[in-house]
Amino acid sequence: MRRFFLPRIDAMTGYTPGEQPRDADVVKLNTNENPYPPSPRVAEAIASALDDRLRLYPDPVATAFRRVAARLHGVEPDMILAGNGSDDLLTIITRAFVAAGDLVVYPMPSYPLYRTLSELQGARESHALFSPEWGLDPEVFAVPGARLAYLANPNSPSGTALPPEQVAALAERLDCPLVVDEAYADFAQASAIGLVSEYPNVIVTRSLSKGYGLAGLRLGYLVARPEIVAGLRKVKDPYNCDTLSLVGGAAALEDQDYLAQTRARILATRRRMAEAVRALKFHVPESQANFLWLAGGPPAGELHQELKGRKVLVRLMRYPGLTEGLRISVGTDAEVDLFLKALRAVL
Amino acid sequence: MRRFFLPRIDAMTGYTPGEQPRDADVVKLNTNENPYPPSPRVAEAIASALDDRLRLYPDPVATAFRRVAARLHGVEPDMILAGNGSDDLLTIITRAFVAAGDLVVYPMPSYPLYRTLSELQGARESHALFSPEWGLDPEVFAVPGARLAYLANPNSPSGTALPPEQVAALAERLDCPLVVDEAYADFAQASAIGLVSEYPNVIVTRSLSKGYGLAGLRLGYLVARPEIVAGLRKVKDPYNCDTLSLVGGAAALEDQDYLAQTRARILATRRRMAEAVRALKFHVPESQANFLWLAGGPPAGELHQELKGRKVLVRLMRYPGLTEGLRISVGTDAEVDLFLKALRAVL
Repeated sequence: MRRFFLPRIDAMTGYTPGEQPRDADVVKLNTNENPYPPSPRVAEAIASALDDRLRLYPDPVATAFRRVAARLHGVEPDMILAGNGSDDLLTIITRAFVAAGDLVVYPMPSYPLYRTLSELQGARESHALFSPEWGLDPEVFAVPGARLAYLANPNSPSGTALPPEQVAALAERLDCPLVVDEAYADFAQASAIGLVSEYPNVIVTRSLSKGYGLAGLRLGYLVARPEIVAGLRKVKDPYNCDTLSLVGGAAALEDQDYLAQTRARILATRRRMAEAVRALKFHVPESQANFLWLAGGPPAGELHQELKGRKVLVRLMRYPGLTEGLRISVGTDAEVDLFLKALRAVL
Repeated sequence: MRRFFLPRIDAMTGYTPGEQPRDADVVKLNTNENPYPPSPRVAEAIASALDDRLRLYPDPVATAFRRVAARLHGVEPDMILAGNGSDDLLTIITRAFVAAGDLVVYPMPSYPLYRTLSELQGARESHALFSPEWGLDPEVFAVPGARLAYLANPNSPSGTALPPEQVAALAERLDCPLVVDEAYADFAQASAIGLVSEYPNVIVTRSLSKGYGLAGLRLGYLVARPEIVAGLRKVKDPYNCDTLSLVGGAAALEDQDYLAQTRARILATRRRMAEAVRALKFHVPESQANFLWLAGGPPAGELHQELKGRKVLVRLMRYPGLTEGLRISVGTDAEVDLFLKALRAVL
């Protein structure tokens, strides 16, 4: 069977998602889910759509959802493309711009899916190393000949974010699309969406999984120039978003008050959690996401296992030759207390 | 912007989905949706999952759903891969086996998405023409050097199906995977799933959109050898299926009595509809799907417009240089009566 697969697929290991344990007694801080439920309007909207719409195909171009997203960001609906999670959008983008042998660029350490996407296309990769302060040198990042650049901003695993003017400096130097992956932007101080009007190569992807607490629904969208959106539409699966997620997602975007409330709680917990962990002598970069990056303590693999033994699940991230550490989601206050208690017990 | 896209993407027109009008007074027979609602258990299952599961990522490997699908078909769960509609599975398969310049083969006329998928990969295509009786010559189909073969069975737009022994003859001769796209198999007399144990290159894709009346949910699955499934998992998006569709889809598969009831109604209506249309001198092949293919009457484009003017929406399918016709979904008895009335008025 093996011989049927493309050599590049055979050579891949594939992306490993974080564990999704179903035991209720695990403190699950490993995949950056929102610790708070989504706006109650989401379940209401979905429950009211459990009718003839199940039977019918979804709107292939997500008209109603795009209208809501466009209004939220002050752009035109033809600048929005909806996706089956922002991973779907990253896949679509990669397939649209990158052929086998082409060069893609992204910073390291960052979201491991970029490697998977690039391997799937048979692309070559150039990695721009973050500085110790999690900055990026535009000269190093903007490799000549790159066909696509990914920038997770805020970045995972660090949680740090480049301000829009620094993102603009990267876009300026690149002669290819720059995907600004804003999966965590709901917890950040700024967004690159405002750059799209000035920089035609900027594509901003957003997710409803984190800020809106809808990881189970699979919904994301991107903001880009209409010509980019029109081209990407040809690459997406015809019906890539289901009716229930589009209806639920629109309800979530429309409840900005709820987002502001849960966001404020998460940011307050993040502050307290960062202080507590720093007091334990970990180096923790300033997070603009809903997680913290702990490096520079005891070996991360052992720490991860010890915490797991205490029913606290965090994400072990290894970047061979570069760094390793634990990426820990900001949970509820109670969850964070359990994590801190377990961490102190382990140390 | 244009220059950013790969030349093969620029050159594409992309797949055109059927219209999804939202006017309630249109008789919608253009995208082969089931005219009957899904099993009531689906909405119940989804409504009961509108809880903490919205907030959490779905099971990336759809364990519970695969168990149900495996039991239904008498195979092991590791022979099942779930997808965001069977289109997602066709995309995954194509990306796993086909590189730029590789040869793919499929019959003509058939599902236009195969061309889109092959264009997205930059593949070359070989088309095996159906015989006038909608048969396929294995010698013509199994082109040497092909890296992937698609076979819609039952076929769209014809509705005809090859019996499993003829599918086996194609698999036998091919030195590459044969995707048997069984989106319409719930309305057919047989399935190729039984071939998977004997032919390691057979991959059968199924959809919940048609037989189970769940086009709005986006859920499909494939049945293949475990080694194939393991390789394809590397290619799929990590969380390609959302929690609600997996829960609803499992409920649908578990209600086989309901499927049998709606299937029986659709087959009875199909029989009556075929007789009525044949009496109007159309040539209609024997359908094993939930639609009929009308060719050989007045110009299909005009007929399509005339019917649309009478609020009956059917699918105009054009295969330049080959054929054109109308593909008409089997609706409820009332919808079919309205279609027949409109057709008689137009002729």
